[in-house]
This record gives sequence, C-alpha cells and structure tokens, in this order.
Amino acid sequence: MTKTPQLALAVDVGGTKVETALVRADATLVEGTRHRRPTGAGSDADQLAASVAEAIRATLAEAERAHGITATDLVGAGVGSAGPIDLDRGAVSPINLHAWRGYPLADLVAETSGLQTTLRLDGTCILLAELWAGALQGRRNAMGMIVSTGIGGGLILEGKLIAGRTGNAGHIGQVQIRTHEQAGRDLSVTLEGVASGTATVAFARSLGWTGDRGEDLARDYAEGDARAVAAVERCADAIGEAIASVCALVDLEAVAIGGGFSRVTPDLFELIRSRIDEVAPFPTICGVEVVPSALSDEGPLIGAAGLVHRADLLP
Amino acid sequence: MTKTPQLALAVDVGGTKVETALVRADATLVEGTRHRRPTGAGSDADQLAASVAEAIRATLAEAERAHGITATDLVGAGVGSAGPIDLDRGAVSPINLHAWRGYPLADLVAETSGLQTTLRLDGTCILLAELWAGALQGRRNAMGMIVSTGIGGGLILEGKLIAGRTGNAGHIGQVQIRTHEQAGRDLSVTLEGVASGTATVAFARSLGWTGDRGEDLARDYAEGDARAVAAVERCADAIGEAIASVCALVDLEAVAIGGGFSRVTPDLFELIRSRIDEVAPFPTICGVEVVPSALSDEGPLIGAAGLVHRADLLP
Repeated sequence: MTKTPQLALAVDVGGTKVETALVRADATLVEGTRHRRPTGAGSDADQLAASVAEAIRATLAEAERAHGITATDLVGAGVGSAGPIDLDRGAVSPINLHAWRGYPLADLVAETSGLQTTLRLDGTCILLAELWAGALQGRRNAMGMIVSTGIGGGLILEGKLIAGRTGNAGHIGQVQIRTHEQAGRDLSVTLEGVASGTATVAFARSLGWTGDRGEDLARDYAEGDARAVAAVERCADAIGEAIASVCALVDLEAVAIGGGFSRVTPDLFELIRSRIDEVAPFPTICGVEVVPSALSDEGPLIGAAGLVHRADLLP
Repeated sequence: MTKTPQLALAVDVGGTKVETALVRADATLVEGTRHRRPTGAGSDADQLAASVAEAIRATLAEAERAHGITATDLVGAGVGSAGPIDLDRGAVSPINLHAWRGYPLADLVAETSGLQTTLRLDGTCILLAELWAGALQGRRNAMGMIVSTGIGGGLILEGKLIAGRTGNAGHIGQVQIRTHEQAGRDLSVTLEGVASGTATVAFARSLGWTGDRGEDLARDYAEGDARAVAAVERCADAIGEAIASVCALVDLEAVAIGGGFSRVTPDLFELIRSRIDEVAPFPTICGVEVVPSALSDEGPLIGAAGLVHRADLLP
C-alpha cells in the first residue's frame, strides 16, 4: 500500500478554541482529521496545554485509524497562534488567553507530535492560506485582512512572509488611522477601534440604531436603513484609508479581506476601493486590488499547514 | 599597476540637483569624483537628461584623469531617484521634475556609462546607506526616515530591501497619521502634513511664533520659547505615532532618522521614544530603537552605490 505523501499537521490556537487537522500538499484536509478543543480566557495554563495536546492526539489517532497514517508519515507541524508571539523562543502570549504569557507552544506541539514545528502569528497563517489556495495566489506583495470582532492580518513582501523582529508583523488593526481631539491633545484611534464589527455596531447604535450584532446591521443595511448605511460607510472609509497608508509604505499589489464582518454587504468592497482612490497620495496606489477572501473556515488550518508545505514563502 | 577593485558609479537624482561619484566597496567615495549638475522644476526633459549625462561624464573623466580608472574598471551603476518611480520599466516621474513623467532614467545611465544599472527610490538608497555604513548596520527589519522640508524613507524587512509592486515602498511621509474633522467628515492628514520641517514651522507660526526657517525654530527651542517647544513636541508626537503604527504593521528592530529638520534639537529623539511608548498597542513595540542617522551628505551616493556593492540586500 502506498502511503499518502506529504502530509502536515496543522494547529490553530485561538481565543475560544484550538483546532487541528492533517493537510495535504494540495491544501486539502484529510477527511475526518479535523478536531477542536476549547481554550478560553477562563482556562489555566495546564488546561490550555491539555486542549492543544488532546486535539493533536485526536487528529493523529483518527488519521491512523481511518487512513493508516502514522506520525512518521508526516513532514512537519505548522502552528498559527493568536498573538503576540515570540518567534525566537517559539512562545505565545495570546491577549485573550491570560494564563499563557510566554508559553512555549512550539515545544508543546513538537513534543506531542514528534514533528519539527514552525510557529507563526494567526494573521500570517491566514495570509499564507490566501497565497497558497485563496485569493492571493501568485502575489509577491500583498496583505490579508480579517475584519471580525477585531481586525487582524498578515503581509507578504518581495515574495516572503513578513514576521519582523518578534514575529508580530501584520497587526493592521493596531495601526493609527484617525485621531480624536480631547482636551487639546490628539488621541490615537486605531483601525480596529473604528472599523471592526464591534466598533461599527457601536457606531450605528450611537446614531440611534437599535440592533446588536453584525448580522442585524447586514440586514438593515440591505433594507437601506440610513444609520446602518452610515455605519458601514464609516467602516469602509477607515479600511480604505488604512489600505492607502499601507500601500504608501510598502506598495502592495493586492489585499484580500475576510472575516465575518467583511460579509456585512457585498458593497463593502466597492466602498473601500472608492475611499482608497479618494485618499491615495499617488496614482500608483489606486491600482491596488481589493478582493474578498477565497477561504472557507478551513483557512487557518490550511495556512498553518502552509508553514510546512510552502516553506518557500518563509524568509 | 594594480587597478582599484570593485568600484561602482553612484547617481542621485533629486528635485534641485543630480550628483554622481565613484564609490568603493568599503562605502567611501573616490576623491575628486563627486560632481553635481542642476535639475529643477523649470528644466525640460532634455535639460534634465543632459545634466545627468554631464555629471556622469565629469565623474568618469576625473576618475580616469586622476586615478587611471576607466569605465571597464567599474562593476555597475546604482541610481537613486526622487519618486514616484516605475521599477519594471526603470522609469521615473519625480514630483518636482515636471518634465519627466515615465522617463527611462535607468536606460539613460546605462547608455551614458556603459554599465549595468540598478534603479531604486531615493528613500530606499538612504536606508541602504544606513544599513551598509550608517546607524542600521546588521539590521534585518528597520526603517530609515528623512525629516526635512518633506518626509521620506525606506524599509528593510527579513533582510531584504522592500521595493513593492512599482518600487515606491517607503513613503512613510504619505501615511495617514491623523484626521481633521471638517463638515462632519474626517479628512486624512499625513505624517508629512503634520511633522515635516515645513509643517512644523507653519504650526509654530500659527501659535504666533514669527520665525521662518527650521534653523530659527532650533534656536528658539533651545532658548525655551513656548511656541517653538510646542511645535517640536507636536512634530515628535506625530513621528512617534507613525513609528508605532509601522511597528504594529511590520515589527521593526530599529529606525534611523536623518534630514535637516531631525537636527532641530537633540531632544527630538527622546520625545519620539516617549510618544512611541505612550501609544504602542503592545509591549514589544516599546523596544524599537530610534537613533539619529550616522550618514554625512554623502549618504545618498553611498546608498546608490550600495545597489551594486550590497546587491545581497536586494530581493
């Protein structure tokens, strides 16, 4: 019997769950190997570690039971984690997982799986999935953005994934995009603070809109509610301004935007493109492509596996 | 007689002049080979081309006369130009040289010198000079900034100079850093619009200060004039905010700042560092080093020559 060649273990650690799966070299998941365990702000450090280890063991057990795959058939493990991370030490301090501060996640995955392990920020992995199997295939200078309750992202420049000094490059949500004057001083307002799903819902409510969730806003935008429309336009304006600034700084070819709130209306993309053209400081920036993510909810796992299968994109 | 090995022709094209020189592999200029010719907004396309060609010929003639160096002793030509540029076509459209729009500057230098020619944005060249012979030696993730009448810069990430889609990466001055509310709409204000020497002098005057130039502001800051102090603090705040944003996006190790207005007061650097710490969205950003440029006015020429001598830093 021929073994399935070129399989990677993918691990995605987020604020509410950890997911694991085996991923082939064609960016597809091996059937039945996707497993999840809870994480969460209330877990202690051992509980978080146990969740990661249990999910990995469940994936490996199912791979062996159903497909005859063993750990020795795997070429490596890729891990995406909520940040900040410490790339040199393979450690993570996810904002919403308070019990882990400088926790050696790469070592945990390597010891549990027996595999050589590569760690990157979750935003980097989602970008990698877009480059490998999504909306940014073939791009050398591009950004992936997730617009959801928060805003995150990742960057590829000159054909290489950008990690930076500590591995935390890609935090487009934490870029200062506006200022708010208070007591004669300009206070910094980040892109996430203006344009996340959470911030956009809050802004709509400040206009008298009475919904609670992004889904409500999507419905009311579609029905032409003026407050919902104003809130979505404000979100698009801020995202467009941020993209224009990033293009001035690193001269992108394309930006892919995913995440739940990016689907609030298909109009969002045209509104973003218009705002880029409006504020772009040079004509070349107007040429940047802004496209919806082409990833399913498997994106984070495909991206984590890409750290193994697409090691050519690592610096 | 042994010929001097490893010499590069350096060409720096700016809004008021073009400069040329021969540069050794140790980042020093060959004595007597530095020449300049005027450029300027009033020149037509042929006059600009003639200035570049004359400066190159003067450099090559002096090299031969005084040192016995001929074009065949040179390993290549590096050109830094005011932008925007078009890297794929080796063409330039400098904002202040109106007669050149898509002008094939790389071809002009190659034809005049007979050398293989590499073109990059001037800000990229100045960063390259800092990496090679200045304040950023050994850095893999860093930004060079010039704070003068305008604000420009360049980026190295993961050990490679960032050019981007068209070669225009590095325009830190055109990043949106603040907004100004007008008629209910947030208008974009760039870093250059707040923190350039020009903008800082204008702000001081808006407070009732009566000087005209950066030198006047430097003197009055040193004497404790409250309006000069307020203007310099505002400049430092905006630069600190921009650096914090760039660090969120690409996670830098260090930033070197040069340009005439960066010497307005030695306090500027400490003010910038304080503001970064104040607005940094994560602790890792507070660790970024902010240092003065270590370049003389030979920096742009050294950087242009670095495109040849330090080709290892090109993607």
